[in-house]
Amino acid sequence: MDLMKMKDPSFLKALSNEELENVASEIRNFLIKKLSTTGGHLGANLGVVELTLALHKAFSSPVDKLIWDVGHQAYIHKMLTGRTSQFDTLRQYKGLCGFPKRRESEHDVWEAGHSSTSLSAAMGMVLARDLKGENHSIVPVIGDGALTGGMALEALNHIGHEKKNLIVILNDNEMSIAANVGALHNALGRMRSAGKYNRVKDELELLMKKIPAVGGKLAQAAERFKDSMKYFMIPGMLFEEFGFTYYGPVDGHNFDDLFENLSYAKKTDGPVLIHVITEKGKGYRPAETDIKDKWHGVGPYKIESGEKIKPVNAPPAWSQVVSDTLQQKAREDDRVTVVTPAMILGSKLEKFQNEFPNRLIDVGIAEQHATTMSAGLATQEMKPFLAIYSTFLQRAYDQIVHDVCRQNLNVAFGIDRAGLVGADGETHQGVFDIAFLRHLPNMVVMMPKDENECQHMVHTALEYNDGPIAVRYPRGNGLGVEMDQTLHSIPIGSWEIVQEGTDVAILTFGTTLMMALEARKELAAKGISAKVVNARFIKPLDENMLHQFMKANIPLLTIEEAVLQGGFGSAVLEFAEANAYQNQSIRRMGIPDKFIEHGSVKELLNEIGLTKENVVKQVEDLIPRGYEQKWLKSKG
Amino acid sequence: MDLMKMKDPSFLKALSNEELENVASEIRNFLIKKLSTTGGHLGANLGVVELTLALHKAFSSPVDKLIWDVGHQAYIHKMLTGRTSQFDTLRQYKGLCGFPKRRESEHDVWEAGHSSTSLSAAMGMVLARDLKGENHSIVPVIGDGALTGGMALEALNHIGHEKKNLIVILNDNEMSIAANVGALHNALGRMRSAGKYNRVKDELELLMKKIPAVGGKLAQAAERFKDSMKYFMIPGMLFEEFGFTYYGPVDGHNFDDLFENLSYAKKTDGPVLIHVITEKGKGYRPAETDIKDKWHGVGPYKIESGEKIKPVNAPPAWSQVVSDTLQQKAREDDRVTVVTPAMILGSKLEKFQNEFPNRLIDVGIAEQHATTMSAGLATQEMKPFLAIYSTFLQRAYDQIVHDVCRQNLNVAFGIDRAGLVGADGETHQGVFDIAFLRHLPNMVVMMPKDENECQHMVHTALEYNDGPIAVRYPRGNGLGVEMDQTLHSIPIGSWEIVQEGTDVAILTFGTTLMMALEARKELAAKGISAKVVNARFIKPLDENMLHQFMKANIPLLTIEEAVLQGGFGSAVLEFAEANAYQNQSIRRMGIPDKFIEHGSVKELLNEIGLTKENVVKQVEDLIPRGYEQKWLKSKG
Repeated sequence: MDLMKMKDPSFLKALSNEELENVASEIRNFLIKKLSTTGGHLGANLGVVELTLALHKAFSSPVDKLIWDVGHQAYIHKMLTGRTSQFDTLRQYKGLCGFPKRRESEHDVWEAGHSSTSLSAAMGMVLARDLKGENHSIVPVIGDGALTGGMALEALNHIGHEKKNLIVILNDNEMSIAANVGALHNALGRMRSAGKYNRVKDELELLMKKIPAVGGKLAQAAERFKDSMKYFMIPGMLFEEFGFTYYGPVDGHNFDDLFENLSYAKKTDGPVLIHVITEKGKGYRPAETDIKDKWHGVGPYKIESGEKIKPVNAPPAWSQVVSDTLQQKAREDDRVTVVTPAMILGSKLEKFQNEFPNRLIDVGIAEQHATTMSAGLATQEMKPFLAIYSTFLQRAYDQIVHDVCRQNLNVAFGIDRAGLVGADGETHQGVFDIAFLRHLPNMVVMMPKDENECQHMVHTALEYNDGPIAVRYPRGNGLGVEMDQTLHSIPIGSWEIVQEGTDVAILTFGTTLMMALEARKELAAKGISAKVVNARFIKPLDENMLHQFMKANIPLLTIEEAVLQGGFGSAVLEFAEANAYQNQSIRRMGIPDKFIEHGSVKELLNEIGLTKENVVKQVEDLIPRGYEQKWLKSKG
Repeated sequence: MDLMKMKDPSFLKALSNEELENVASEIRNFLIKKLSTTGGHLGANLGVVELTLALHKAFSSPVDKLIWDVGHQAYIHKMLTGRTSQFDTLRQYKGLCGFPKRRESEHDVWEAGHSSTSLSAAMGMVLARDLKGENHSIVPVIGDGALTGGMALEALNHIGHEKKNLIVILNDNEMSIAANVGALHNALGRMRSAGKYNRVKDELELLMKKIPAVGGKLAQAAERFKDSMKYFMIPGMLFEEFGFTYYGPVDGHNFDDLFENLSYAKKTDGPVLIHVITEKGKGYRPAETDIKDKWHGVGPYKIESGEKIKPVNAPPAWSQVVSDTLQQKAREDDRVTVVTPAMILGSKLEKFQNEFPNRLIDVGIAEQHATTMSAGLATQEMKPFLAIYSTFLQRAYDQIVHDVCRQNLNVAFGIDRAGLVGADGETHQGVFDIAFLRHLPNMVVMMPKDENECQHMVHTALEYNDGPIAVRYPRGNGLGVEMDQTLHSIPIGSWEIVQEGTDVAILTFGTTLMMALEARKELAAKGISAKVVNARFIKPLDENMLHQFMKANIPLLTIEEAVLQGGFGSAVLEFAEANAYQNQSIRRMGIPDKFIEHGSVKELLNEIGLTKENVVKQVEDLIPRGYEQKWLKSKG
């Protein structure tokens, strides 16, 4: 069939299972081909081809609500709902979003990007449906990894109690993003191997008949025994304990099995959980055989061989530099312990794990627990380093406030993917962490200008003994600078003048420092002498340096790849106010008050005006404002 | 015995159970008497008298680590560790903290205030112990309510998987703060009624003997049957599924039962959960018979009658005003639905619940789920209002960012206990919400000057259709102003000039507005004319008014009972910068960069300089700075 002609999933209702299998096969081929040039979340989508077709046949979207947890597995859903032709633009600037997007389609009823939100969203929709007296189906699809996120468990607890109609699809591919951890994972394993209710039922009835009738003192025990039979019959007793009716395990690549259980579920009152077993990467051998993460998220690749098309001789990734430094520090100091929420691969911690298996603690998708557990480690004089993406650290805000900062514990945070991340888009941009950390007492926040400074900052964080400290670093690869062989601590709150200048001082850090240096050249050509400062400590500020600048009344331009409101530039404004530098000229550049969608980082920076050209323009505009007298005089 | 002489819990080891009962009785009498004047968390502490004595006898603190979840039940622990004589100062300024405090005692190994942190903290301590090769016991004590918090569930999942030694005490009083909700609660109920392992074991063995041997086709089924016996024998199978060994239920007021099970637990490898049943308020009849919350947190009372000593004719509580307005709105609009995380009593939602039982959704202690579920409701054109304390909203930061603001959904937030809360201290101060909400795109944040404006703001929030909106209001009672009979919407982003003035404009909102008006009188006496502005919208700012002020170059003083960094005052600084008001004089007053401990709100405001006197001083200081020329001239 012509996949481009799929406008609406209703056509699926007329198809036989054999026809569905053909569609599944065509979709797989399409995705393998398209993603070989655009990249994307191939593994997860190949795993849910049959499941998505089955759901869209069994239910009637958008009246029935399909909710995709995390959302990176919604490509087939997008294809079935009229967006196949847009896959050339997948995850590109102004192109098809890699996650569900309400404005793209009425079939996208919920947006995600972070995990474990689908059950709560579904429960809200269930309550709304029942209050309105409607009766459509609400069907969240959640992975086994996302299920261990605290919010998903909070939702399970609430849903199981309320007893309202809701069909949860547990998409169990035995992975979160990579290997799964946690007791729930073990329990799922037992369920997978237990065999099905309907298969064991006959055997059970035979056995029951062999038990003689009991009476008297034993009657009560026999009653309890009968209750306990449920546990025997139903492998998913854990979910039954939570108040769900459990169906499964179901072969997620077998339409007969899928439809049979979906049909049971639709006839069941109250919350249902269908335990579907899928294979991540199914149908593409290089993905299937990848034991690391089954091609979770990939860039372009050669279809035949599965060889990844990557830039040659790229500088080391920031994550790798951090991980290598941690390994070095761990050799010197027994107390160094690294904590990760399911991001061993993303944070490039495999080598660390191999050398120090007991000192790499992967807690699964559980950012809150990761943070407070790190605080617990710190109370015992350990040196926890929590490696976490900026956007996921948002989940642990209260734990940072209440457990880490308030107790002033020595927890080091490695904030990965800080700044704009590109193709993953607005759910993943690491742009809020400065604004949500800077107002917390006891917190130190720093960002390196290059990977060499980064290794020293990791060292600094682990040597620091006065409370929490964070080093934030961007996604992608470093600059390719030479690495020092010996690590040293950077004095807390010390900035560095990278280039001298007299007409204006540009205060910036991290990725935007190079841009400032380039702008400086252009300004020089225009006769403007710009000082460029590596403001590597976002908190505390380098107060000595700021006093110097402000006493000299040199105009200041702050630049940050982070939200402007409450950000680094605001800290500089606050410093001027607190110290009564009345006529100090300050201008801020950063991310405006809106969510930034997907695209290349360069395109996004361009969109929001974080460019060399704009730096030049802002400086030219700034100088006459505050610096007019001196500037005009110097220009004769 | 003389309770004042208890310096160290080691004396308990020599006591018989009978002697322990005497100590328990004396402690109860002491607490009932002391708290009758100071107030405090009486109910929870009366419930754990025997449990605390048993833990301190069975373990050796501080080598063994006792971790109190939430921490409001640690009064007996404080008494046993040498702090009995300080109870006259409980929860008072510079006095004994109402929660564990590391600087008070080496026995306080973990501080809390927010719920559900103890298991994560314990796991951190367990990892540290094992990495160091030590072998002490680590014993978190967590209530049944706190167990449903997402972080606690994340921790359960991780702990159960790791199989390390850890003894969790589940203190089950069948309540969180008030009635409990959730599937886990139901499961606990089944466990309570199931009777004990050791009691049913004999009966079971008899029964087993009556089952004939099976072979052939039935062998496999019989094997599974044997496995399922565990479910029969052990009522706490839910916890066993999570990887814990379960002991219980245990009578938490019976020393024999407590010591027997603690002794089992100490001999058991891997994680253990002891399910202890306690009665909140035990031993004080007015608390025992209070069906609402068993005297969870109380002010002063008369010991004999239990009568609460309260100010007469106090104005209505802010929470009550909000709740009453919600009730009125719910009558007019079917879509209005109120969500609360276990705070029906605290948020005074009982009357609302009585009238609209289906439209008051109590999710238990689950702030993340509450927020994202509200977002789910909003996708279906409902009007969710999430009533939540400022300090607990911190738990839902990512849900606000990722689910509510990013999707720009019409979720209304009622942020209760905003500002300083007094006796509950630093874990409960509602001082961060402005700083963590203001930088989020699409967010509107407002605060009323009095309870009449508050009702209009609740109305405004529910009528607003352009995205998320929050109304924050303080703890305690309103000002006693007259209430309008008809509700109206306040234009978004509109401030109000409360008193005119020409020398300075004071911009403030909420509780500090009255202070500004009082300061204005004193300033007038000194010949300074102060304009006082009700800056009721913290986001968006009233840009028209700010342009007027800044064009006139009138000096501005901002005042907020919230953290200064990234706060309202910073928003005004940012506005001046963004609009290039170069010489605008601005000074900010607010909460400095430190955690604020317990005490009366008045004492705390005094400590941090949020006083009328300081407002006068700041204005006097400010005026010559920016306004010198005009001011000097006008003074002749």
